[in-house]
Formats: sequence, structure tokens, C-alpha cells
Amino acid sequence: MAEYIESLQNLAEQFGRLSGVGRKSALRMAFSVLDMTDEEAVEFARAIVDAKEKIHLCPVCMNLTDRDLCGVCADETRDRSTICVVSDVKTVIAMEKVREYRGTYHVLHGVLSPLNGITPDKLRLKELLERVKEGTVKEVIVATNADVEGETTAMYIARLLRPLDIKVTRLAFGISVGTDIEYTDEVTLFRALQGRQDV
Amino acid sequence: MAEYIESLQNLAEQFGRLSGVGRKSALRMAFSVLDMTDEEAVEFARAIVDAKEKIHLCPVCMNLTDRDLCGVCADETRDRSTICVVSDVKTVIAMEKVREYRGTYHVLHGVLSPLNGITPDKLRLKELLERVKEGTVKEVIVATNADVEGETTAMYIARLLRPLDIKVTRLAFGISVGTDIEYTDEVTLFRALQGRQDV
Repeated sequence: MAEYIESLQNLAEQFGRLSGVGRKSALRMAFSVLDMTDEEAVEFARAIVDAKEKIHLCPVCMNLTDRDLCGVCADETRDRSTICVVSDVKTVIAMEKVREYRGTYHVLHGVLSPLNGITPDKLRLKELLERVKEGTVKEVIVATNADVEGETTAMYIARLLRPLDIKVTRLAFGISVGTDIEYTDEVTLFRALQGRQDV
Repeated sequence: MAEYIESLQNLAEQFGRLSGVGRKSALRMAFSVLDMTDEEAVEFARAIVDAKEKIHLCPVCMNLTDRDLCGVCADETRDRSTICVVSDVKTVIAMEKVREYRGTYHVLHGVLSPLNGITPDKLRLKELLERVKEGTVKEVIVATNADVEGETTAMYIARLLRPLDIKVTRLAFGISVGTDIEYTDEVTLFRALQGRQDV
């Protein structure tokens, strides 16, 4: 049926291109659009073009922004001596939700994965090095995942920044709060043991 | 974070208005848009406005279409003596997938539900009555769901068309193909028993 109606089919295909949207969901979304008023549909279409046009990388930290600087870099109360290095913007969002971190960020836009062609020059490492070289930075916290790529990236950054004599730390890995130790996987338990602290 | 970037936040809210899309999915979709090229984003936006502008109800059967008539009504090989009455366009899509039904459709755009204010005048029943009165229709198959609203609607249509002396039938309800009888719920089993047929 949808194939009879070209413009509905086309819209469903467009939704289907979004990450995590299957064929059935895409069709359901296309029907949702038909339930909108004309004004709502135009507003929706404009939001897409708007976001695409206005959003760009913050020239300091490579985070996304629709202003000159991103919200964090523009905030004068943030501590510029600490940079938290993350793989993507979604990690920035997660970190900001904690409302505990008061430093700045640096978004790499990926993690090292030579087998997939993600070599150091593909990441925003040069920009990080330049920021650190300016001299105000005292600590770089690497907040990449605990998988092979994340660990490799953390190691690479530690080695890259070593000559500059600043502290490079890594987020702690261990047992999630609320998780039974009994059900924790071996690797996590190993990391928790390694990172044990005085009580 | 997303709240720092107004246009991203706005786009995520637009996605969040679509049926079945939660806050997290909406944000993920908004990020997907940022990963598109400018041309892709414009194409997406255009597809929304296009679908909304071009799609309207088929004047014969109230199905959706972006032509003069819907695909089924425009198809001269379809049997105009049979009308399958459905509650919405999605049922038409489901029926068409079977590739077995060669008659036409009539989309009610809802089912009777007086408690929710859906009275007969809110559905496309007048249009159905007019089509049947023209005289070429011999059978009306009511394909509404087996719930209270669906049954009420089927009953209403049967009574509405009775004076016109045409056959009004209802889709068979029973055990789904591939389902164990052991696990079939009582109501379905009751319907299956009622509808039993000679072997």
C-alpha cells in the first residue's frame, strides 16, 4: 500500500535512514506526520534544516554548538585547568547530567581503531595537543570506554601528553552502583580489584 | 548538554512528538540528522512537507493517496462488487500484503466508541452508505478488530446496510496459524469454536 503512495513511501524511507529506526517504525513515523497540521509539518521540516545549518563544532573543544563557542567553553565559571577527553558528544551529555564535573571537555569524534581505518590523524588529537601546549591545563581526564579501542586511545593520549608534564588520568572502572558483586563479570571484577581503595 | 544547543534540542523535541518515539530515541535521531550531508537533510525536510501537502483522502474509498484516486480505486482490475471496510489505512496495507483480496476498500478512519466521543457521524459511514446505494456492491466485508469497539462498529454497519439487501460479512476470528491451541486465550478459543467449519 505504502508503495502506491509515493510521497508516503519516500517519507518512510527518510525516517528509515535514521539510526535505530526499522522499517515498521519508519512507516509509523510517516503516518504521524500525516496526522500533524500543515504548520506542524513545516515547523518539523524547518527544525531539520535549522539544526543542520546552525550546528557546528566548537572551535575550542570540538563539542557541538549553534553559537560561537559551546555552552561549556562559553561558561566563564568552568575550570580551564582540567580537560575531560571524550570520544563523542553523547558522552559530554552524560557527564553534564552528573552536575559534578566543572572542567572543560575535548571531543575526539571517535576512538582509535586502526583495523577500521581510524588512525590518530582521523581524531581531534592535534587540537587537544595544541590546547594542552598553551599551558593552562594541569590535568587531562580520559573518559573513553573500557573496550579495546577506548583503552588504546587512552594509552595513546597518555603517551602523547607525557612530554608536556601534565597529569593524565582515566575514569575509574569497577562494579556499578546497585549491581550485585555476585553477578559482576570477571573483567569488571578484575578492574574493581585493581582499582581498590583504602577505606 | 542538548539544552545548551537550542536547535538540537528543538529537533529532538520534534522527533519526540512522533508516535512511539521516546526522549532518548528522539535525541539519537536528532544526532543522526547531524551526521547527514546538507543535501540529505534538505531532502528529508522536503519529504515531510511533500507528504503533508500531496497526500489526501481518495474521494471514493477514503484511503490515502497522492493522486486523484488511490491505487486500489484507480486499478481497473479490482472487483467493485466487494468492499472491505477497515478502521484505518494501516489495515489496508496489511490486507494488500496478503495479495489475495481483489475487491475495493472503505476506510472509516476510526471505530465507534461513544464513551470517547466517536459517534457514527465522526466516521466515514455516510460515504460508505452512498457507495453501497449506487447498486454495484454485492458484499461488504467488515474487517474491524475483535475488540468491543470493532464489534460494535461491525454490528452498526450490518444494521445500517440491512435495508439495502446486500451481504455483510465479517473476517473470521480464531486460532492464529502457528499458535499452539494449548496457549490460545479463552476468548479466541471461544471464537474459534463458534466459527468451526466442516472438514
